[in-house]
Amino acid sequence: MMRPGDMDGALAAAIAAGDEVHGTTSPNPPVGAAILSADGELVGVGGTQPPGGPHAEVVALAMAGAAARGGTAVVTLEPCNHTGRTGPCSHALADAGIAAVHYVNPDPNPEATGGAQYLAQRGVEVSRIEARTRALDAWLGATRLGRPHVTLKFAQSLDGFTAAVDGSSQWITGEDARADVHRDRLTRDAIIIGTGTALADDPSLTARIGVDVPAERQPRRVVVGSRDVSAAAGNLVRLGYEQYPTLAEALDALWETGARDVLIEGGASLAASAIEAGLVDAVRAYIAPVILGDGRGVLHGWSASTLVNAPRFELGDVTTFGADVLLELRTA
Amino acid sequence: MMRPGDMDGALAAAIAAGDEVHGTTSPNPPVGAAILSADGELVGVGGTQPPGGPHAEVVALAMAGAAARGGTAVVTLEPCNHTGRTGPCSHALADAGIAAVHYVNPDPNPEATGGAQYLAQRGVEVSRIEARTRALDAWLGATRLGRPHVTLKFAQSLDGFTAAVDGSSQWITGEDARADVHRDRLTRDAIIIGTGTALADDPSLTARIGVDVPAERQPRRVVVGSRDVSAAAGNLVRLGYEQYPTLAEALDALWETGARDVLIEGGASLAASAIEAGLVDAVRAYIAPVILGDGRGVLHGWSASTLVNAPRFELGDVTTFGADVLLELRTA
Repeated sequence: MMRPGDMDGALAAAIAAGDEVHGTTSPNPPVGAAILSADGELVGVGGTQPPGGPHAEVVALAMAGAAARGGTAVVTLEPCNHTGRTGPCSHALADAGIAAVHYVNPDPNPEATGGAQYLAQRGVEVSRIEARTRALDAWLGATRLGRPHVTLKFAQSLDGFTAAVDGSSQWITGEDARADVHRDRLTRDAIIIGTGTALADDPSLTARIGVDVPAERQPRRVVVGSRDVSAAAGNLVRLGYEQYPTLAEALDALWETGARDVLIEGGASLAASAIEAGLVDAVRAYIAPVILGDGRGVLHGWSASTLVNAPRFELGDVTTFGADVLLELRTA
Repeated sequence: MMRPGDMDGALAAAIAAGDEVHGTTSPNPPVGAAILSADGELVGVGGTQPPGGPHAEVVALAMAGAAARGGTAVVTLEPCNHTGRTGPCSHALADAGIAAVHYVNPDPNPEATGGAQYLAQRGVEVSRIEARTRALDAWLGATRLGRPHVTLKFAQSLDGFTAAVDGSSQWITGEDARADVHRDRLTRDAIIIGTGTALADDPSLTARIGVDVPAERQPRRVVVGSRDVSAAAGNLVRLGYEQYPTLAEALDALWETGARDVLIEGGASLAASAIEAGLVDAVRAYIAPVILGDGRGVLHGWSASTLVNAPRFELGDVTTFGADVLLELRTA
């Protein structure tokens, strides 16, 4: 017998499984799935594996084995109905004897959609449930836009400066916020910077999270601009990077090669051209409780002509990291 | 018999009573008090009345009457032991037969302190309790500093601009944030602006909260700077204002005339001189999810020479108002 709370537990497990694979699945979505047996026991959990590997539902079904028969599947995205490198998840669920499927987001991909309909035709009870599935935000946005979903990240003083007048910027934000930046990088397909930042900072753009992260798990390193940075950007040369003359060309190439979720980390000129081109879908602003008065701004080379023309976002999560606060914005 | 939870209820009532009188008590602290009968019933609640009127404990005792005998008093500040325009609250509590007094903040005022000791000598059980008493923050700060506690308020774009390049600034933040500005003004003893703001904006600096606020309940209107603003600042002339050549002189005069909790609302030059002089004790930054790229900054005329020299604050409450977020900072 299902007990009240079984569904909540399965949903939380499915969302967590999706979070865990976030950053490893593109161009496929970072989906999570959980299977409850007919008795309401959590018998399977899984996240979508890297491209070519099984999707979340198949991983969770494999863990559940025979216990899936008559059971319930909870999935963060509508099961796909599409044969790509793997078979359709909708078929796998029906074949395993799953009696009910609850999913959070409908599949917006015209190639893969139809899973819910197929399952209903096979006599499976299908319904949508409401939940926040952060790991899918960028993938869903990218699929809608037909280009990688772009997040602009910066760390600034309260009054909007990323460095003091003398250029000093280490460290505006504290250790907890910086650790969050590294965790966040791991969820991205690519980190994009301008040539100016590559030349000035010699950055590595890797996710350093206190444990070794295999190179293939790291986001791609992308430089935008025409200047040759190879002489000064030793870390990028060592680790490998891609360079494109413009942001638009970078996004085209990234999309074609499977990237769906990319992060712009600066500098101010690249950020300005991204904003000006309407290519910023989300913002991660780490704000330190420090006042600089003047210095290097977040954007350089573009400004709104008047207040009503300025790009407005929706306020998303607000999170504190030690002394700092992270404001997450997204397009409305 | 006291029941678990009685104390929590009394503490919440005392804090709320202090909040209610916040902005009306200076130079006295906005204290709240609650009285539980010996049976644990809430029989009295009160906040400190305007100068010359009874303090919180006396208001709460008057409501409790005979039911105070053998009861418990919960007070946001240590009961005063001082005869000013009213008698010492410590004596009033003991005389009413109160058996136990719990207070949150010790009285830092050398003239008024000693209440806890007096009560203990009279056989009253006295103890301190932990709680957040926002209404007392500024008064406690002012008493420690020997000058009015100064809060700097501004509304800015995410990237730190209070107006776009063309000067447009109405409205960066939304209706909910602007309503909060008016509620907040009502808790202040004075609102301070520079002559530039007085000349450019013709502001009223009144708390407009949807109901009529009597003129004597409004904060004092203070202009800092030497320029004559009377020709352009019609609203200030109509409502009455004070003017001082410098911020230091304004704060001296305000302290001498009883102000403890003042708010600087701009402009950027006054904000800069307050930061430069180390006179900003708290910041209220309303941040709108809009990006301007360039425009009028929060400060004008001062900047930190390098990051480590910049004033750092502690992050306090983070509150969302509609689409906007309010960051409250305070000196560490």
